[in-house]
Amino acid sequence: MSGPAIILVRPQLSENIGTAARAMLNCGLTDMRIVAPREGWLSEKAIASASGADRVLLSARIFEQTKDAVADLNRVWATTGRDRYMTKPVDTPREAAAHMRMAESKGQRFGVLFGPERTGLENDDVAVADTVLTVPLNPDYCSLNLAQAVLLVSYEWHQGGVEGSLPPMTKGSEGPAAKEKLIFFFEHLERELDACGFLRVPDKRPVMVRNIRNMFQRANLTGQEIQTLHGIVHELVTYRHKKGKVESP
Amino acid sequence: MSGPAIILVRPQLSENIGTAARAMLNCGLTDMRIVAPREGWLSEKAIASASGADRVLLSARIFEQTKDAVADLNRVWATTGRDRYMTKPVDTPREAAAHMRMAESKGQRFGVLFGPERTGLENDDVAVADTVLTVPLNPDYCSLNLAQAVLLVSYEWHQGGVEGSLPPMTKGSEGPAAKEKLIFFFEHLERELDACGFLRVPDKRPVMVRNIRNMFQRANLTGQEIQTLHGIVHELVTYRHKKGKVESP
Repeated sequence: MSGPAIILVRPQLSENIGTAARAMLNCGLTDMRIVAPREGWLSEKAIASASGADRVLLSARIFEQTKDAVADLNRVWATTGRDRYMTKPVDTPREAAAHMRMAESKGQRFGVLFGPERTGLENDDVAVADTVLTVPLNPDYCSLNLAQAVLLVSYEWHQGGVEGSLPPMTKGSEGPAAKEKLIFFFEHLERELDACGFLRVPDKRPVMVRNIRNMFQRANLTGQEIQTLHGIVHELVTYRHKKGKVESP
Repeated sequence: MSGPAIILVRPQLSENIGTAARAMLNCGLTDMRIVAPREGWLSEKAIASASGADRVLLSARIFEQTKDAVADLNRVWATTGRDRYMTKPVDTPREAAAHMRMAESKGQRFGVLFGPERTGLENDDVAVADTVLTVPLNPDYCSLNLAQAVLLVSYEWHQGGVEGSLPPMTKGSEGPAAKEKLIFFFEHLERELDACGFLRVPDKRPVMVRNIRNMFQRANLTGQEIQTLHGIVHELVTYRHKKGKVESP
């Protein structure tokens, strides 16, 4: 088990617990802790909104007080939007994630407190934490709901582990063709453009050819796509040949 | 007005539209566009779940088709979890945010497509986009809901994106054309390909059209380049008309 414990303090609505579970599992987190929930965390609403992440709810641990829920942790963040007039360091989710990765590499355990939907954490809850966690948002409207706050914190944790590991292209692609195939297509296209008169002005021809090549060049065409382009040009051209009424120029 | 347009394609539930509006405004975004919503975007449910972000809903623009919703944009991302076997570059939300900042600095307009809750975007919607946007998540459970996906993309935009890790720009100084110009060219090309018989097999037509669009899409064509392509197609075709020996099909 790795990553932060997600600690919901006195959550009001069971569907928010479910949606928070979903956000956690999306980011590979499973250690959910709940302090004095007002509604059941295994209610039908909770399960429905967890949308398949039931196992997070099933393994959630319930505590009476915040201090019990953080007892085994070495480091705790408290999420809050408002200023609490406490002298504590403040992290963004991204900064917190970096600190968490560091803590994990030292074998430490850590977690993040999230307050009730309407009021947020009480000062006594915040006091238990080492660091305040605040999401930088639109100063004129910062009304994150509980599950959204859980998502952003979990997401930043998860990004710290996967940064740069996406393939640059969708998996289905075969990758750009060898240049000789592209050049072969260029020659085919230019032959036909000469024939139909598109490149008829000798002065402009080199620039036009270069511009046309640049366009296709930039598309990083696969071998199969180049075949399609051959087909398109061929078909547009042989159409008139097939009809047998226009001579090959 | 700055930042990406958030384009909800055929959203099913009005509360998800509301929650998406809330996520947007949290991150300072206000340009919401909705393609063929199933339920009202100004319903009581939508307003309630927007939780004070009504002005995003009130100013939302409604379109019948995806292509109309992106007509004025220079650059479009399509969010998708599944692999679509299309050859397109893939961005994480953070990478997309960095590209968006760059596009904005050049005065370009851009947006992100989000699909319906149950099914996600259709391949024809994805084909309209330049880049696929995928959130790196727990591979064993990646079931983001619509508003959560909107939140992560908006959040990364707001955070300012990654600095200093960008691929060099491959575009000319003019920048990519607005999508309506590209779509107009696609329609021109496809009309001619229908006429000459290249797209004659009805079963294969949709996939072929999508593949062809994807190729050109990827090249980030400028307005001038699109004009050149119109010219190429026109010339290849009118050549046979000019000769007066082949009838217009």
